[in-house]
Amino acid sequence: MKDQTIAFIGLGNMGYPMAGHLANAGFTLQVYNRSSEKAQRWLNDYSGSSHPTPAEAANKADVIIICVGADKDLLEVACGPQGLLSTAKAGSLVIDHTTTSASAAHELAELCQQQSIQFIDAPVSGGQQGAINGQLTIMAGGKGSDIKRAKPVMKPYAKAFTHMGDIGAGQQTKMVNQICVAGLLQGLAEGMHFGQHAGLDMEKVISVLSQGAASSWQMVNRHQTMIKDEYNHGFAVDWMHKDLDICLMEAEKLGVELPVTRQVDKYYQQIQASGGGRWDTSSLLKRLKSEKEPK
Amino acid sequence: MKDQTIAFIGLGNMGYPMAGHLANAGFTLQVYNRSSEKAQRWLNDYSGSSHPTPAEAANKADVIIICVGADKDLLEVACGPQGLLSTAKAGSLVIDHTTTSASAAHELAELCQQQSIQFIDAPVSGGQQGAINGQLTIMAGGKGSDIKRAKPVMKPYAKAFTHMGDIGAGQQTKMVNQICVAGLLQGLAEGMHFGQHAGLDMEKVISVLSQGAASSWQMVNRHQTMIKDEYNHGFAVDWMHKDLDICLMEAEKLGVELPVTRQVDKYYQQIQASGGGRWDTSSLLKRLKSEKEPK
Repeated sequence: MKDQTIAFIGLGNMGYPMAGHLANAGFTLQVYNRSSEKAQRWLNDYSGSSHPTPAEAANKADVIIICVGADKDLLEVACGPQGLLSTAKAGSLVIDHTTTSASAAHELAELCQQQSIQFIDAPVSGGQQGAINGQLTIMAGGKGSDIKRAKPVMKPYAKAFTHMGDIGAGQQTKMVNQICVAGLLQGLAEGMHFGQHAGLDMEKVISVLSQGAASSWQMVNRHQTMIKDEYNHGFAVDWMHKDLDICLMEAEKLGVELPVTRQVDKYYQQIQASGGGRWDTSSLLKRLKSEKEPK
Repeated sequence: MKDQTIAFIGLGNMGYPMAGHLANAGFTLQVYNRSSEKAQRWLNDYSGSSHPTPAEAANKADVIIICVGADKDLLEVACGPQGLLSTAKAGSLVIDHTTTSASAAHELAELCQQQSIQFIDAPVSGGQQGAINGQLTIMAGGKGSDIKRAKPVMKPYAKAFTHMGDIGAGQQTKMVNQICVAGLLQGLAEGMHFGQHAGLDMEKVISVLSQGAASSWQMVNRHQTMIKDEYNHGFAVDWMHKDLDICLMEAEKLGVELPVTRQVDKYYQQIQASGGGRWDTSSLLKRLKSEKEPK
């Protein structure tokens, strides 16, 4: 297994440590990153080779792993003029960890199939900390045999890996996750906003409420920084807005109305407009605080 | 301690088993319920005496516990013509488990003080199941000495009991809970609605997502019944709407805007209007399903 060569495309907050885990596990790594400085930095931390284009990184690789920003980036590194599909060999496996639309997954799967390349969509959750600790949760869509082949490759950074269904099902599962988080975080922000205005000891309030029916991962893991009005502790608003846009587009295709998700996405756009695109998603509280009082 | 006489006012879904725990623990119980049939049934299950008015139940009691529906009911059983304050003795302690406005708590506290009666507001969470199992979480507001006196009395049905602050702070903590739950449940409902339309295996989706950042008590404890489109497994829409109205009124007093809480409260009103007032709060999913598809 470990004599496989892996091309890793995208050394961002997530990809950088994920590729590192693979190098440490003994795989031969061929990496590509849009900014070459970051690829250079990666080479100082881990062993492997850096390449100026996705095509060169993917050349002769057995497995090609992609972890970039969004649909557009994915299609560029895959199908662009210097894209990985121009060199990827027949029989290789493409694993896409990018959070994208289901249609991007279908499009890329079809292009891969035309070249006898296997493809799975495999978005992750667990954030940068999960990537650093090798504790990501991976939701995959694709053929059972391809999933089976991908599993040992992802082991160095996966806590859990679940086959959700056909191509696109991994992405759709990730969308369910983001939709649930959006409403949940706005509820938490409104609750904390109310409690702070009422003059309650919010540490005490959360220690009680986190034992019961209002409890959530976000409540337990984000309340302390929210109380301090600090918003640099997790997934950024820019990414959440990108993901929610994908959810809302997909929902429209399915004929499904998601009113509160749509509303929260608007709030995230307001936060971006006020310069908070890099704040974490719990900054919905900061937005509430900056609102004018009701008439 | 156990030689105390306790008046218990309100044998509803919550009060019935709570009063039962007290009787089983050896306290002398004097109960009152609006419908006397239910009081009669309680007397078949537990030992104590039943009384036709709150005043008669409270007569000579050391501790008077109230667990009724809302502000109006509270003020009626307390200050109405047959209300408990007409007989409650000086030095007795009133514990109010009703979820009410903070102003109702202040009003009753003041009336009690005029008669040298102690008062704490002590709303509960944990639902009917928590009441039956004696595992309620209690959030109390009032003087430290009154809280200390109340604690051993509530022990037979409390899992946790926390002193949140002055009079009204128990109620405000409960409001934070309901605000958090409202947004959270709508997010969960939208996520499940989306996933079901996408044709995902929702049991599998939830088993993955409940390991991560979208996880919540509601997700873990309500997804199975939501998947089955069953909504008779918890706190009723009628009660949630009552509670959210209290939250929104209190928020207005504090000058705090709670946009998604307000929206979810409207959804609950729509569910009531469609005949679902007794469904549980996760029926937000059923409402989404019944909505027309977007234009």
